[in-house]
Amino acid sequence: MVSRVQIELLTTGTELLLGTTQNTHGAWIGQRLLRMGLRVARQVTVPDGEAVGRAMGIALEEGEVLIVTGGLGPTSDDLTRESLAEVLGLEMIEDEAAMRTIEEFFASRQRVMAQANRKQARAPVGADILANPNGTAPGLYLPPVLSGSFNCAVFLLPGPPRELYPMFESEVVPRLQAMSGIEKVPEFVELKFAGIGESDFHQGVDDRLDAIPGLEHGYCARPGEVDLRLIGSASSIREARKVVAGTFSEELVSDDGSNLEKVIVNLLVEQGRTLAIAESCTGGLIASRCTDVPGSSSVFRYGFVTY
Amino acid sequence: MVSRVQIELLTTGTELLLGTTQNTHGAWIGQRLLRMGLRVARQVTVPDGEAVGRAMGIALEEGEVLIVTGGLGPTSDDLTRESLAEVLGLEMIEDEAAMRTIEEFFASRQRVMAQANRKQARAPVGADILANPNGTAPGLYLPPVLSGSFNCAVFLLPGPPRELYPMFESEVVPRLQAMSGIEKVPEFVELKFAGIGESDFHQGVDDRLDAIPGLEHGYCARPGEVDLRLIGSASSIREARKVVAGTFSEELVSDDGSNLEKVIVNLLVEQGRTLAIAESCTGGLIASRCTDVPGSSSVFRYGFVTY
Repeated sequence: MVSRVQIELLTTGTELLLGTTQNTHGAWIGQRLLRMGLRVARQVTVPDGEAVGRAMGIALEEGEVLIVTGGLGPTSDDLTRESLAEVLGLEMIEDEAAMRTIEEFFASRQRVMAQANRKQARAPVGADILANPNGTAPGLYLPPVLSGSFNCAVFLLPGPPRELYPMFESEVVPRLQAMSGIEKVPEFVELKFAGIGESDFHQGVDDRLDAIPGLEHGYCARPGEVDLRLIGSASSIREARKVVAGTFSEELVSDDGSNLEKVIVNLLVEQGRTLAIAESCTGGLIASRCTDVPGSSSVFRYGFVTY
Repeated sequence: MVSRVQIELLTTGTELLLGTTQNTHGAWIGQRLLRMGLRVARQVTVPDGEAVGRAMGIALEEGEVLIVTGGLGPTSDDLTRESLAEVLGLEMIEDEAAMRTIEEFFASRQRVMAQANRKQARAPVGADILANPNGTAPGLYLPPVLSGSFNCAVFLLPGPPRELYPMFESEVVPRLQAMSGIEKVPEFVELKFAGIGESDFHQGVDDRLDAIPGLEHGYCARPGEVDLRLIGSASSIREARKVVAGTFSEELVSDDGSNLEKVIVNLLVEQGRTLAIAESCTGGLIASRCTDVPGSSSVFRYGFVTY
């Protein structure tokens, strides 16, 4: 069930390591790839600057595809383009079409283009320029042949989500699909449980899940809750669900990604019943989680926090 | 201004790469270290299983401190302890005291301990066991001498935040403080701007900020907003603020981490004024951001979404 393409993800940005910005690219890209039957083998985050080039070197050694986000901006700490050219020994040139697009981006917004933006049109010789309708930084795609002995395809993508997401969809997804040749995407099911611990699963079903051919399974535990992740063929997942249902049917919360509070609220809506909550140690957390569910206003009456 | 200790962070967990769980450890640990004058040099995320050992090998090569989160649970995909022992060629033994603590954890909750939990008491010979009052997985600390030629201190910490955070505070922070010998933590200021782009900074102030001795600066851009990060001595930060204030005083939103909506709501509260919002393309986003600010209920009157 391991994907056929070794994908390395390099997210760059000092703010991600200082913790002033949450790194959400990993989860977003991971979910998008999962729907294509692919996955990230390793994600690395390094600060802006010279660490980017070194991290690229390591990723190129092992990856068949390297996706890099961030560092395509116009300021002095944006060095992703230059670092890649250096690591691969490629010459950089100013791409005329890219330069025109950047100029038009500013002109259409009646803004003056800063001289610094010129460097955003520079690209290693032979790279494809990936259009960015939502910002000034074009992305870059280098087919495997450009990386020489590494034989690794490279995508350089902008960091801001509203530029990254559409570019990933229009430029990265089709290229990865062609590359991977996956026709049948394995199924993915997440079963959520409450009231049992991870070790109950180990004792109760782990061996039997291990024995199912073509199935990959894993756990994620939170206080009072466990998610069981199943990836594989339709038949292997059917078999796994049977094993689990026979042992932990009482504790099963959902099989469609719905969390505990969503299941509770939906049940109440269905049955036309209402909810009042009195809580102490949790200080409003239960009420907060329940009222976060869309549609909860029709069932939620009162919350009493007696902290 | 680069911290004196090379800290490598390895976050493990297949769910982090599949994107079903958001990886928040990097930001939390980054912020905590920043307050000590330290920072993460590189963060790597790998799936559960054999990738953990290989990632440890790479991190040990470069790091003086390696912090690993996750994979200390009782199930078959929890292999962090075993992987470390294998990479370092250390023998694993069952720690009697750790075993007793785990047994007591279950006894105090009137639960039966699963046989699988026994492996959570195993540790490489010579390692310090780090108590976990909030779960069954004890952490581990290996002083540099145990890692042989790597000469790298290693922390193995549990993945769940409510187990990780207190253990980090009580066990990791004091050891890192002793190791780093930092007496004077550099200051950190984040200036938030709205209505200008990153390239305006490059053109307007970047060179002058670069020229300030002992100052490190960087940018993080979002649509319509730019954060400028300043790290350094009190005097270098004072000088940088003067440079920026002289050029972009109109666009400055805050210097204490407050976002745009918080500044707006606080100004309205101070002046006893109220807020009504009519928005179209943003579909309620402006209202949502404003009502997310604590205290906004006293100023927010109406939001009209005319989508």
